[in-house]
Amino acid sequence: LAQENADELRALTDQLYVSEVAELLTILTDDERPRLIELIGESFDFAALTEVDEQIRIDILDELPLHLIAAGFVELESDDAVYILEDLTEDAQAEILRTIPTLDRLALQRALDYPEESAGRRMQSNFIAVPPFWTVGRAIDYMREASDLPEEFHDLFVVDPGYRLLGFVKLNRMLRSKRPVTIDAIMDEVQEISAETDQEDAARTFQKYDLTSAAVVDKGGRLVGVLTVDDIVDVVQEEAGEDMLALAGVGDEEVSDSVRAITRSRLPWLCVNLATAVLASLVIGLFDATLEQMVALAILMPIVASMGGNAATQTMTVAVRAIATHDLDPYNMGRVVLRETYVGLVNGGAFALLMGIVAIVWFGSAGLGLVIGAAMVVNMLAAALAGILIPIALDRFKIDPAIASSVFVTTVTDVVGFFAFLSLAALWFGI
Amino acid sequence: LAQENADELRALTDQLYVSEVAELLTILTDDERPRLIELIGESFDFAALTEVDEQIRIDILDELPLHLIAAGFVELESDDAVYILEDLTEDAQAEILRTIPTLDRLALQRALDYPEESAGRRMQSNFIAVPPFWTVGRAIDYMREASDLPEEFHDLFVVDPGYRLLGFVKLNRMLRSKRPVTIDAIMDEVQEISAETDQEDAARTFQKYDLTSAAVVDKGGRLVGVLTVDDIVDVVQEEAGEDMLALAGVGDEEVSDSVRAITRSRLPWLCVNLATAVLASLVIGLFDATLEQMVALAILMPIVASMGGNAATQTMTVAVRAIATHDLDPYNMGRVVLRETYVGLVNGGAFALLMGIVAIVWFGSAGLGLVIGAAMVVNMLAAALAGILIPIALDRFKIDPAIASSVFVTTVTDVVGFFAFLSLAALWFGI
Repeated sequence: LAQENADELRALTDQLYVSEVAELLTILTDDERPRLIELIGESFDFAALTEVDEQIRIDILDELPLHLIAAGFVELESDDAVYILEDLTEDAQAEILRTIPTLDRLALQRALDYPEESAGRRMQSNFIAVPPFWTVGRAIDYMREASDLPEEFHDLFVVDPGYRLLGFVKLNRMLRSKRPVTIDAIMDEVQEISAETDQEDAARTFQKYDLTSAAVVDKGGRLVGVLTVDDIVDVVQEEAGEDMLALAGVGDEEVSDSVRAITRSRLPWLCVNLATAVLASLVIGLFDATLEQMVALAILMPIVASMGGNAATQTMTVAVRAIATHDLDPYNMGRVVLRETYVGLVNGGAFALLMGIVAIVWFGSAGLGLVIGAAMVVNMLAAALAGILIPIALDRFKIDPAIASSVFVTTVTDVVGFFAFLSLAALWFGI
Repeated sequence: LAQENADELRALTDQLYVSEVAELLTILTDDERPRLIELIGESFDFAALTEVDEQIRIDILDELPLHLIAAGFVELESDDAVYILEDLTEDAQAEILRTIPTLDRLALQRALDYPEESAGRRMQSNFIAVPPFWTVGRAIDYMREASDLPEEFHDLFVVDPGYRLLGFVKLNRMLRSKRPVTIDAIMDEVQEISAETDQEDAARTFQKYDLTSAAVVDKGGRLVGVLTVDDIVDVVQEEAGEDMLALAGVGDEEVSDSVRAITRSRLPWLCVNLATAVLASLVIGLFDATLEQMVALAILMPIVASMGGNAATQTMTVAVRAIATHDLDPYNMGRVVLRETYVGLVNGGAFALLMGIVAIVWFGSAGLGLVIGAAMVVNMLAAALAGILIPIALDRFKIDPAIASSVFVTTVTDVVGFFAFLSLAALWFGI
């Protein structure tokens, strides 16, 4: 297809949705991507760049001539433009911003001044605001005639002369009201979101009140933008993915990242894990005389540690998820901790019995069965407590439990598991 | 507050949003919840029940008198009603359905006939459909006068006399058009979602085309309901959480579940893990003579297995997430597998060096350093391959990679880790 046949390509991509163009870009090789865009030229919709992975986006923008980027940016909605700009270096940002008309540039620059992943970054700065004394008829006429309206909108915002928010009107309320009715008679109370709010908290507000759009206000309470629910869907998706990856010790990673980026995102956690693994080995080292005399202990000890590790991971994952969705809060914390302790004891008891029997059959030693059973109960209980208490404690200290929990939890279950098993064995067999 | 002061409670809960009433219910004890609802009586909004955990919902409905439930259901939107009904037993469903007016009952029963977690379950059966030849003015007049409209709507659907979908009109298009314009002049092409579609796939369609609502059609292509984006936010949240829990070997669990439900959701995975741990121990058992002569091996072997396990979990989590979001597809699969292999080799090399030095310093044996280094490279490579290939293979065989990947992956890294380390040691030291 890339036989330089620009017309055909243009005809083809014009029929595609933005997300389909993005998929097409992802499939192409590194060289083909900017070539395709250059061939399509001005009719390429830059919104497609918001739907490809970060690395691909940066590479494409690196290759494209500036005048094409400038032309593309003029057509973009402000939230898409910010999304594309925020991953670039400051130099590249400045270079692109220089090519953009003053008014749009100021809005973009203001959005970029808000912290990363804040409502101010995700909002659209193009919205409809009307005064409360207008009638429905006047507002409708205004919308029919205005040319610079956003492409999609669900609500009208009502503001005073200083752009302070008074309320909002849903479009379906507008449609169902007669023309002479005034706006303030049909407006509803509005949910304000401060521009500095983290996007995750903004998403929670949307879910809590089932919003389709929300007003974003600056520190002075003035309306500066609108967050719409289709952006929130992406935020929810993104945040859930981040938690999942963080729990596994992976940084902010996408499948299109380079080997170097991937290695960098995974090394820290592997280093920490090496340290905790060495710590666990040091604990085993305390019992070298015991192990020398009874090799069965060396054979069985990974089972105790592994079961504890898995039970703890289960509890921890449930806790981290519940903290993220605010399902676990000070009100039910006591109940939940108590219940996890019970579950730990029940599971510990069940697997102590099972593993005790296995050990007796395997090595023909009742003592060994007893020791591994007791160690299993101890470690499963430790696993339950660590799995629930560590995420809660981290959250209390304002550390993201998704990122830091695994380290502490696996350290506890490894150390407790090996220590309980080997020390009980040393005591029981007197070695 | 629960001093039977019904009026005060009613005044209080009337001011709260549905989600706040749900939070209030969650905080209360098992006995207080139905008491609160009975006291509030008819002014209790049953929609609050859609926002509490499943177990709490079932308990409350068990306790409430039927006439109150019947009254509450009449006020509900159809999607909320289905959401509450679907977790109940068939007997309880039938009992509640009997109390509901015929027309609503038929709609609910039809929705319940669709498979669980399908678009048909999540849709609202109350929507606005107009014929294409109406003018904007006539449609607006219709909306002003009709009394049974849904509370919230963003789009109008255009249908033929057989209720087959022709297109849809966005409300903001309606508002900006003059009254004499006919509907078919301003309607857009519509995204149809079949009622049998899985909610996860429906959510993907919403994200792909940035929809605010989509038409749900039955097998005959007739419009039967509407899916709105606020429901999709919940679906995205729910599905991401399910994947995260599944990876950790936890079933569909909520923080309010009972000890028995939790134990049941976690036991299967712990049992599987016991089996794989025993398998790993059997591998260790093959080398009991070697271990007996060199206790340092027993001390160091968990490190090799643990590092492999963690590296594999990282790769696997990235792969499972990418498969779920459709970022990993046949087009980039080859590239991704190759890259993970590189990353495995790079990390394996780095940690081989590090761990080799630690072993030499600790035990003063260059041979031991060499052996653990070589084992580390082998296991990190195995971890990378298992971490990426197992989720892809499971997905190919239509098994959910989130649920089944961990078992296979940890088995591979444990078995390969112990075997590589102990067999290399046996060869090198000739024992």
